[in-house]
Amino acid sequence: MTDSLLDIRARLRDFAQERDWDQFHTPKNLAMALSVEVAELVEHYQWLATGVDAELTEAARTGIRHELADVLMYLVRLADKSGVDLHAAVLEKMLLNAEKYPADQVRGDARKSTQY
Amino acid sequence: MTDSLLDIRARLRDFAQERDWDQFHTPKNLAMALSVEVAELVEHYQWLATGVDAELTEAARTGIRHELADVLMYLVRLADKSGVDLHAAVLEKMLLNAEKYPADQVRGDARKSTQY
Amino acid sequence: MTDSLLDIRARLRDFAQERDWDQFHTPKNLAMALSVEVAELVEHYQWLATGVDAELTEAARTGIRHELADVLMYLVRLADKSGVDLHAAVLEKMLLNAEKYPADQVRGDARKSTQY
Amino acid sequence: MTDSLLDIRARLRDFAQERDWDQFHTPKNLAMALSVEVAELVEHYQWLATGVDAELTEAARTGIRHELADVLMYLVRLADKSGVDLHAAVLEKMLLNAEKYPADQVRGDARKSTQY
Repeated sequence: MTDSLLDIRARLRDFAQERDWDQFHTPKNLAMALSVEVAELVEHYQWLATGVDAELTEAARTGIRHELADVLMYLVRLADKSGVDLHAAVLEKMLLNAEKYPADQVRGDARKSTQY
Repeated sequence: MTDSLLDIRARLRDFAQERDWDQFHTPKNLAMALSVEVAELVEHYQWLATGVDAELTEAARTGIRHELADVLMYLVRLADKSGVDLHAAVLEKMLLNAEKYPADQVRGDARKSTQY
Repeated sequence: MTDSLLDIRARLRDFAQERDWDQFHTPKNLAMALSVEVAELVEHYQWLATGVDAELTEAARTGIRHELADVLMYLVRLADKSGVDLHAAVLEKMLLNAEKYPADQVRGDARKSTQY
Repeated sequence: MTDSLLDIRARLRDFAQERDWDQFHTPKNLAMALSVEVAELVEHYQWLATGVDAELTEAARTGIRHELADVLMYLVRLADKSGVDLHAAVLEKMLLNAEKYPADQVRGDARKSTQY
């Protein structure tokens, strides 16, 4: 079975090619589009207390699922256009984060959880 | 070999648990953190023409790779806390997008490429 | 005494001209820069309960004041480059909002307060 | 004549009070709402070359004017709830920026124009 991130990348390449959209997909434009999709996700939470499932309507649940998908799609597309292997990049960054935030020193400290 | 998105999800669960950070990871807070990471990514492109590789310094390339990773980490974490299977959500959304943007009708039309 | 928004607009014009920065200040670039500054503001609140004064350190208060200023500066600059009178635009939009959200129909309804 | 920023602040206080919305207007929530409005502004520019007037439709011009207003409204509201005088904050920040970016040293340098 194909890996999920590679599968999404392949599908998005086909989708853009079939529509001749590659010409618009510069990294700059994709980064902007990514930020717009993230805001559509944020919008669902802005007046809620915490956004846990019990606070959501069924319509909100569907909307959130779709916006999460949109964010991942633009992210995969931007990584593809930037020549970045997302899985490898996460492993690399998590090693840095583990050094920056040693478990025994930041336990339960919100101010230290600004990044993974 | 473990699927990339599932592997990242498992690693982030361990990382948060070891630091007792689950208490801060409400969907609302994670959505905000996600938007902050996306802006750190956007910052790399704001004064560039298109953001293609030739316009980047080596430091920018590394920064972009790390920010792409940060965005994916918060996204995976938010999906996990929201009970959303990201791969399935993308497949679901791509079907909707294929209906919304038929290839033969939107070819080369930038205004139609606001979402995949 | 000069009006505050007009005063800020005039000062920013001088500041950009003295540095030959007008060439970078396209509406697209300014909108991106604006979104980056807003995220730096959001970052102060992401792990707080509500962000009221009692939750803030003195450093956070100063940071927030500076980020609020940065956001306003890019906003005034973008409006200037777009030929928009910000005060008049707010008055125009508030009339629309008053029609959209009649006080007696939306009282105390969070879902209706997504825009002024 | 009333100063523009003070006039907007007063109008927004009345608008929120008439709708009993103060309860939702925590700094954290307002910062999120601000970021959502900025993204709606960014959306207008994402597939354009530079966003200058000639690239815009009449509908886009109106949309941009309204989004600029929305951003300013949430910004003024957040500053109000945070006890920040926006005009004074801009003057304070511009002094810092003038020191950080001396005109004779950053002239025409895009990388230095990341903040005013």
